[in-house]
Amino acid sequence: MIRLVLAYDGTGFHGWARQRGDLRTVQGVLEDSLGRILGHVPDLSAAGRTDAGVHARGQVVSFAAEADLARIQRSVNRMLAPEVVVVSAKRAPDGFDARLSATAREYRYRIDTGPWPDPFTARFVWHRAGELSVPAMRWAAGDLVGEHDFASFCRARTPPTSTVRRVERLSVSVQGDRVEIGARANAFCHQMMRSLVGTLVAVGRGKMPADSMPAVLEARDRAAAAQMAPPHGLTLERVVYWRRTRKGAR
Amino acid sequence: MIRLVLAYDGTGFHGWARQRGDLRTVQGVLEDSLGRILGHVPDLSAAGRTDAGVHARGQVVSFAAEADLARIQRSVNRMLAPEVVVVSAKRAPDGFDARLSATAREYRYRIDTGPWPDPFTARFVWHRAGELSVPAMRWAAGDLVGEHDFASFCRARTPPTSTVRRVERLSVSVQGDRVEIGARANAFCHQMMRSLVGTLVAVGRGKMPADSMPAVLEARDRAAAAQMAPPHGLTLERVVYWRRTRKGAR
Repeated sequence: MIRLVLAYDGTGFHGWARQRGDLRTVQGVLEDSLGRILGHVPDLSAAGRTDAGVHARGQVVSFAAEADLARIQRSVNRMLAPEVVVVSAKRAPDGFDARLSATAREYRYRIDTGPWPDPFTARFVWHRAGELSVPAMRWAAGDLVGEHDFASFCRARTPPTSTVRRVERLSVSVQGDRVEIGARANAFCHQMMRSLVGTLVAVGRGKMPADSMPAVLEARDRAAAAQMAPPHGLTLERVVYWRRTRKGAR
Repeated sequence: MIRLVLAYDGTGFHGWARQRGDLRTVQGVLEDSLGRILGHVPDLSAAGRTDAGVHARGQVVSFAAEADLARIQRSVNRMLAPEVVVVSAKRAPDGFDARLSATAREYRYRIDTGPWPDPFTARFVWHRAGELSVPAMRWAAGDLVGEHDFASFCRARTPPTSTVRRVERLSVSVQGDRVEIGARANAFCHQMMRSLVGTLVAVGRGKMPADSMPAVLEARDRAAAAQMAPPHGLTLERVVYWRRTRKGAR
């Protein structure tokens, strides 16, 4: 198996996943370029199915191929950089699957609370003027950590699937006008991170009480959460692979 | 007089200065938006005539108008942000002229020497893989500081104009893969900063000797300098206004 770490600016893409029709997706352009290099389009597995407009600094994908790693990296980057960049290309053990083997995903959401947006960060940061109460946001975030049914924060699937997830960390940091929300979970259901951020921002603005998260979780109803934050502030930072067996045993 | 400080992402513009035809320029979109707000298009003076693709964090413009400063800032930003942002709007003394009153301009050029570009900074940083000898670049930069005829670094004008400028600072900093060149001068002739950067990079690559700058200056010929660096790594950071009279005397 080959394992690639990807960084991309999601602005110009309709998300990660290839779609019907000719919508431009990260998976689509990557498969097209790999197809040209390998002579066949590989079956890609990706750790995070990022939404339209969401970015990645550490997306991980895997596929089966016998090919020179340096050549794959160089060739893909020649075709797709700087919009999509293969940061590293490595061989992975048989059975490795970027999606199924991942044990945690880390996302980061960036908010600019200053009076005017910054042209240099506007593509990757949500500009939302006005102070946020970070202590209130931290209080609320604390109640969301742990294993819960996040149905109130998930876009429903048909047929319905489990919306139980284990949030290992949900932190709120502030520096000047920049507020950042970092999250780590075993997995995120569809639109969960943007919904968590929108709800924490509602708490930070005083529109929702800081202690209302247990009730929001309990409701299992999207109407209980606040409006989702826009996609462009969100970046998939890192995917974690935990080795079940001792080092080198695979 | 009204004095605006502007930040802009120059990627989508054919430079600062309005041009014949319908090329999109920063001056053009700003004048159009000010015209809508004021009812007439003001006569703008700008401290730096940035080239196509060059950015600004602290461009300064001035114009005569009687208008509410907060309204100008809010209205322009509603029309042009985040691509062009009015960072501040202030009243200036009669006789203030953003271009003529400026005593120095500060530019910064950002270079990424890592193996692959970074999708998150690619719009504002020149990706040029391969190490640069920073000590050699600093040596060369030191010989360029001072008042010199920079004809070797200037695009010729018709009719010819003076190319004597006073470079007050030319610094090279490095952190990891990032090399940055900062310059401060009383003024810069056309394409001078990009030509200085291209030449310092040639020195950093060992293509030109570190001690060759006196000869390059002496030549007064563009062929003596190296190829210009591309525009997108360059940002006009700040414009300096020196008060002739003691504080508050104006």
